[in-house]
Amino acid sequence: MNEAEFIAALRHLPLHPGAQDLRDDAAVIPLRDALLVLTHDMIAEGVHYRAGTDPADIAWKLVAVNLSDLAAKGAAPLGVLIGATLIEGSERFVAGLDEILRAYDVPLLGGDTIASRGPASFGCTAIGRTARAPSRTGAQAGDAIHVTGVIGAAMLDFRAGDGAAYLRPRPRLAEGLALGPHVHAMMDVSDGLLLDAARMAEASGCTAAITLDAVPFAPGIAEADRLEAVRWGDDYELLFTAPAGWMPPVPATRIGTMTPAGPLPLLLDGQAPTERLGYQHG
Amino acid sequence: MNEAEFIAALRHLPLHPGAQDLRDDAAVIPLRDALLVLTHDMIAEGVHYRAGTDPADIAWKLVAVNLSDLAAKGAAPLGVLIGATLIEGSERFVAGLDEILRAYDVPLLGGDTIASRGPASFGCTAIGRTARAPSRTGAQAGDAIHVTGVIGAAMLDFRAGDGAAYLRPRPRLAEGLALGPHVHAMMDVSDGLLLDAARMAEASGCTAAITLDAVPFAPGIAEADRLEAVRWGDDYELLFTAPAGWMPPVPATRIGTMTPAGPLPLLLDGQAPTERLGYQHG
Repeated sequence: MNEAEFIAALRHLPLHPGAQDLRDDAAVIPLRDALLVLTHDMIAEGVHYRAGTDPADIAWKLVAVNLSDLAAKGAAPLGVLIGATLIEGSERFVAGLDEILRAYDVPLLGGDTIASRGPASFGCTAIGRTARAPSRTGAQAGDAIHVTGVIGAAMLDFRAGDGAAYLRPRPRLAEGLALGPHVHAMMDVSDGLLLDAARMAEASGCTAAITLDAVPFAPGIAEADRLEAVRWGDDYELLFTAPAGWMPPVPATRIGTMTPAGPLPLLLDGQAPTERLGYQHG
Repeated sequence: MNEAEFIAALRHLPLHPGAQDLRDDAAVIPLRDALLVLTHDMIAEGVHYRAGTDPADIAWKLVAVNLSDLAAKGAAPLGVLIGATLIEGSERFVAGLDEILRAYDVPLLGGDTIASRGPASFGCTAIGRTARAPSRTGAQAGDAIHVTGVIGAAMLDFRAGDGAAYLRPRPRLAEGLALGPHVHAMMDVSDGLLLDAARMAEASGCTAAITLDAVPFAPGIAEADRLEAVRWGDDYELLFTAPAGWMPPVPATRIGTMTPAGPLPLLLDGQAPTERLGYQHG
């Protein structure tokens, strides 16, 4: 069973309505006075990071990718739970955890440890709350498509040997809080700008028309790297749509338009992309 | 770093007040109209189950131990998130997940998968809600100590080759809901009756005085096995205290009394136990 088959099988289980058929980054549970947002991501040696990576960076990335899912839902974090394999260098793992929890003022709620042989794996559950949780499905034809920050920084840093942008992504929590009440659809860019935009368009019954020249590439992305950078993940920027003409309350760049659904979920400069769109999990 | 050192290090991080200094089974977050209860436990091949175990049993146990933590807080489950290594037999894992979710009417909220080599590991986060969450710390001198069900069934089944009681524990959710509003202290018996009673007594500033003859042993526990059975874990019964004379609303057996703190947190038949109290994690 690969990941897609596994998730397809899970869809036959009793799902919470807030699980959104397991097609979104996070689950949303309505309570009387707020929406709870819950997300769980794992990272593993040899899959998400190279053996020999500083465990402080592993801890940072583990928490950051989960906080990024909360950001995509416009949620303020309530806390995180951590599951951790005990490893050589667990002290550094705790140090990295301390850094990111303090950086984003997020408290630790609890967790569990295992003493396992073999490659280490780590899990994080983040819980947040919000008054309104945008989903992937809310984009409308005519919406402008925006992205925060720049695209390609993680790719450049990875090539240079696991730099800060790849291992220490900055979840866009403040931006998510500012955007959440207003946007039609929102998600984080974890698997590649094109792939994630295509997923949002497909979930919303639209086609995303992206203009390559409009994409805000990171300084250092050469002309020849641009097509790879839009297929690379790990930038953890926020991708969102809103009515054309609306001015986002945070710095963001308009990179395209949602159009009525055509035969493909995504067009790049009006053309069907000829290669894979991004990082497809195994 | 072993588990105790790791958790001690985590106590220096920014903790949520509801994390209860990482000394309880679950975190409690007060919202306006309810308490949220969150818990995260992992299980790993070679640590919590034997290689070759039916993945359906792994899934059952993974969810059961987390639901048991909710039961100990008197909480009704809202849902679970699952983190899973993709393995040979993931279909059976999904089947076991389906069984326990349906058995306890708990919906799946989401989760994540990893394609990792090496021994598999799995994580579960359970979230529940309650109006009142008993902790380990609330026991008072003079309280009666009770336990639901029987002690030693998991040990017998494990010896017989991973039977139903060991691999398919039944979390005491209904009992927890009935007891939660009334008891002084409550926890689940996961690491051994004596060890868990000692932990509760220590957290509450008491000494637990347990009478071996009063313990409700599983049918098949021989006289000679009794001292081992009270040190064995995995029964997932509820251990709770309440004023002497109070009648529990669910079947339970009184096994002792909380007394003012003496030099030891636990006495068995008035004596200091001479061996380890239960299963101490690595």
